[in-house]
Amino acid sequence: MMTRRPAALENLLHELTRLPGIGRRGAERMALHLLQAAPDQVEALARAIGQLHHDVRPCAICGNWSQDERCEICADPRRQNGQLCVVERPADLWAFEQAESYAGRYHVLGGTLSPLAGVTADDLHIAQLERRIGEEAIKEVILATNPSIEGDATAHYLARRLAPRGVAITRIAQGVPLGSHLGYADAGTLKLALEGRRPLAS
Amino acid sequence: MMTRRPAALENLLHELTRLPGIGRRGAERMALHLLQAAPDQVEALARAIGQLHHDVRPCAICGNWSQDERCEICADPRRQNGQLCVVERPADLWAFEQAESYAGRYHVLGGTLSPLAGVTADDLHIAQLERRIGEEAIKEVILATNPSIEGDATAHYLARRLAPRGVAITRIAQGVPLGSHLGYADAGTLKLALEGRRPLAS
Repeated sequence: MMTRRPAALENLLHELTRLPGIGRRGAERMALHLLQAAPDQVEALARAIGQLHHDVRPCAICGNWSQDERCEICADPRRQNGQLCVVERPADLWAFEQAESYAGRYHVLGGTLSPLAGVTADDLHIAQLERRIGEEAIKEVILATNPSIEGDATAHYLARRLAPRGVAITRIAQGVPLGSHLGYADAGTLKLALEGRRPLAS
Repeated sequence: MMTRRPAALENLLHELTRLPGIGRRGAERMALHLLQAAPDQVEALARAIGQLHHDVRPCAICGNWSQDERCEICADPRRQNGQLCVVERPADLWAFEQAESYAGRYHVLGGTLSPLAGVTADDLHIAQLERRIGEEAIKEVILATNPSIEGDATAHYLARRLAPRGVAITRIAQGVPLGSHLGYADAGTLKLALEGRRPLAS
């Protein structure tokens, strides 16, 4: 007895479910919302999506998503020079920016080394990173890849590869996250938290 | 240190978070996916959204979303006449269709009575329902509004209002859902499940 829904609706559902984190139910909820929304809201969304590729490109220096050739951070003279925070993706960079605890500059790798998926060092923006270290007189490279197997492997690879350049190479701390419960922490996190312990001033 | 992201990206994030069930994180995930997606996928999504209002309208008979003046179900001569399943929204109708257990026709109310929100009987498609009962020689009206306070109140209102028309008026069964655990069921559901108990043939 299953009947087809309007083709335009099925088409939208198909396109929506291609997005990450959107299942059949979520797509239906969004589509039904749009069907009952004001036409100008629907047009605004369609336009915003259509404009995206036209208006946004990778920053020529750091790889962050940018409106101009250089992103706001690279173009900002108030950012501290000499420090590069190396992240996998622009989303990681935004997370640091939202934390408002870093004043230096960034470099986006574009991913992690992943031999199984065919991602080698040449596929990541490492040559640009090496160039920047020289040109921008970098003193410290902070490796802020994710605390995953691939992220750790990529950090270790970079530490080895950048060692001859005579810059300080650091890795962000791994341990139990703020506000978490030790009882729910996994063994690997607890091990790293113990290994990374530091003296506490009394 | 918070820097702004490209305006086109912020604009898309703004439009995406207006959708139901999409928070800041979900919108970022979708936007980043679109930034790295093939241009034709992004265009297809923008077009699908833009076409929606143009191609889809409420069925003139039952209120289901439809490509034509009459929806596929109303236009289908194989659907059983004489039975109307009354639902709140097209999504409820689709759920029944996906269950493939109903062969009759539908009527979409467009919501429930909600005095606090200012929704009265005149705001729902009840006059059309009454007209259909006569014109289509309906023998049974199945009230399939949601098992909520508003859905129940609307079902009771309709039962009273349609009583003089001499058609059978039924309400879908309420009870414990398939695959659920009694230990997690709420008191109201258990009460309804008990009240609705039926003899079990041995």
